[in-house]
Amino acid sequence: MDQLFSYEHLRTFTRSVFLKMGCSEVHAELASEVLVSADLRGVDSHGVARLSGYIRLWEAGRINPKPNIRIVHETPSTAVVDGDGGLGLVVAPFAMQVAIDKAANVGSGWVSVKHSNHFGIAGYHAMKALDRDMIGMAMTNASPLVAPTFAKERMLGTNPIAVAIPAGEQPPFVADFATTTAANGKLEILQRKEQEAPTGWVQDKAGNSSVNANELKSGGALLPLGGDRDHGSHKGYCLGAIVDIFSAVLSGANYGPWAPPFVSFLPLPPDPVGEGLGHFFGAMRVDAFRPAEEFKSHMDTWISRFRSTTPISEDQPVLIPGDPEREMAASRIHEGIPLLLPVVKDLKEVAAKFELDF
Amino acid sequence: MDQLFSYEHLRTFTRSVFLKMGCSEVHAELASEVLVSADLRGVDSHGVARLSGYIRLWEAGRINPKPNIRIVHETPSTAVVDGDGGLGLVVAPFAMQVAIDKAANVGSGWVSVKHSNHFGIAGYHAMKALDRDMIGMAMTNASPLVAPTFAKERMLGTNPIAVAIPAGEQPPFVADFATTTAANGKLEILQRKEQEAPTGWVQDKAGNSSVNANELKSGGALLPLGGDRDHGSHKGYCLGAIVDIFSAVLSGANYGPWAPPFVSFLPLPPDPVGEGLGHFFGAMRVDAFRPAEEFKSHMDTWISRFRSTTPISEDQPVLIPGDPEREMAASRIHEGIPLLLPVVKDLKEVAAKFELDF
Repeated sequence: MDQLFSYEHLRTFTRSVFLKMGCSEVHAELASEVLVSADLRGVDSHGVARLSGYIRLWEAGRINPKPNIRIVHETPSTAVVDGDGGLGLVVAPFAMQVAIDKAANVGSGWVSVKHSNHFGIAGYHAMKALDRDMIGMAMTNASPLVAPTFAKERMLGTNPIAVAIPAGEQPPFVADFATTTAANGKLEILQRKEQEAPTGWVQDKAGNSSVNANELKSGGALLPLGGDRDHGSHKGYCLGAIVDIFSAVLSGANYGPWAPPFVSFLPLPPDPVGEGLGHFFGAMRVDAFRPAEEFKSHMDTWISRFRSTTPISEDQPVLIPGDPEREMAASRIHEGIPLLLPVVKDLKEVAAKFELDF
Repeated sequence: MDQLFSYEHLRTFTRSVFLKMGCSEVHAELASEVLVSADLRGVDSHGVARLSGYIRLWEAGRINPKPNIRIVHETPSTAVVDGDGGLGLVVAPFAMQVAIDKAANVGSGWVSVKHSNHFGIAGYHAMKALDRDMIGMAMTNASPLVAPTFAKERMLGTNPIAVAIPAGEQPPFVADFATTTAANGKLEILQRKEQEAPTGWVQDKAGNSSVNANELKSGGALLPLGGDRDHGSHKGYCLGAIVDIFSAVLSGANYGPWAPPFVSFLPLPPDPVGEGLGHFFGAMRVDAFRPAEEFKSHMDTWISRFRSTTPISEDQPVLIPGDPEREMAASRIHEGIPLLLPVVKDLKEVAAKFELDF
């Protein structure tokens, strides 16, 4: 029941929408590239399906379409960037570029960002380092949906971490994952299919284990990677907390339960502890450690050795992080990007609002 | 059935043993501090219980008691350290100090280490940054015991990550965790108690889910954090892989299945791809991002807010990473450190070998 659209069509349309929101040509182009990269790579929950959400935040005055994004504090290897309330889709590339420039100068660069909004997929930003022969890292905090181990209260976002590592002959290693057992987007897929969630994904509002994929709508919470204490959920909680602190306490953004919600119908938390959402980016030149060709040749060995790991079943070989998304992108660029009908309907409404064609 | 020993007694004894192995006074003092910090903090699997293992590696010629630990490559914010086959217990503090010195100069420091051995608990090294008002990070690769998602072959170590973050009035945030569902030490406790493991900790040699705590002895494997694909084990596999690459591919150590075994009765893998084990350390000055007092005050808010998270049960409040280990250390420094009788027997044999008292 999906409808296929070309990558270029979605790029052109979303660029037009960002222009209508008042973004500059450069920002509209960039924001559309970042947003649609999610659809291209198969992370459907973070692509054009979110476009109307960004628009509602803009209508609510929570997104500044003409931000003055700038460095407000820096050392040779670090910086804090103030996103000025802009789209995370344009604030993040600015900050990642600062990290890359600092790495070019002193070996590594680390940038914490305040006063931003959702930045699309973390992997897009981390991958920006690859063609500079750098390792890239990106993380962000997000609306509180996750209960720490032993808690029934939602305190953290799904706080993803992405790490992109260049190789030589092999494609790069690209890890990009939420620090929860499953990202919210996975839950939404189960909701649409009216299926149950595996245990360890969610709990109900009292903190009991649940398989109800709609549990978040009645006060439940997503669970940190691990699911419960016996299965290491305290480690997932640690990871989510580290992302929160690097992204928001280092920069001066809102952290923990103060992180602003993505949905515009929820009010901003009272008594904010900072400005907007926070992100954290890193870049390390591989030749700041050993000659780049040597590093990349060993990454080729690493990747080919792990790819040849003895599998449990011959039908399912061991994967390298980034394989599924790269294969998805290679297919979708030619075959088109399938959108669910509710998403198509949503985009048609956006088109009508701005007097655009879709 | 435990026997209590004072922290000082264990420090003095292990220092004497390292001296007998031929370590310098400075290295013997340092190695004993790092090793016994594990017992003090309650990570019993990584403390004096491992002393005889270090000795057997030394007897097999796999540990150099008089290493020339040195920087072999560097930029203003990065370095590679060659551990010269020394005890990780002394190589790691050298490398962490390099990271701290670089952070003092340019905001952050990142050090990858080759030709090392097991370094004790990661948390000890990360915490070295705290009294400099820096965030500290430490990770290491280790003997391959872990099967990637979809694999039945052991390819990665339990590859821990530690992150220590300073606060003001509150104690610091100290996360220190293996990137597997459970560390091998947890499995050894179940073996001694003749108890089963929860599902998701281990699989048998064919790759089937297992609750047999002895599964590793018959070709089984530990599982990445998450346990299986449905519960996010691909994320735990990503984390373990990132630790492996940062620790060993960046530095020129052995990675993946080539990581040398801790137990001396296993041969070194043929055709090594590098030298020894690898580690990775990081330090970031918090005032490289915002004024230190401001950062620490917000960390106090973060910690107190998370500590007051509504718990599922009033009997089990939500913890801050580092709470259990800090409370354990505060108790054991006064009450003494309990050792299992097989560990006491092992240490008495070590004492006899070196003509020491225990």
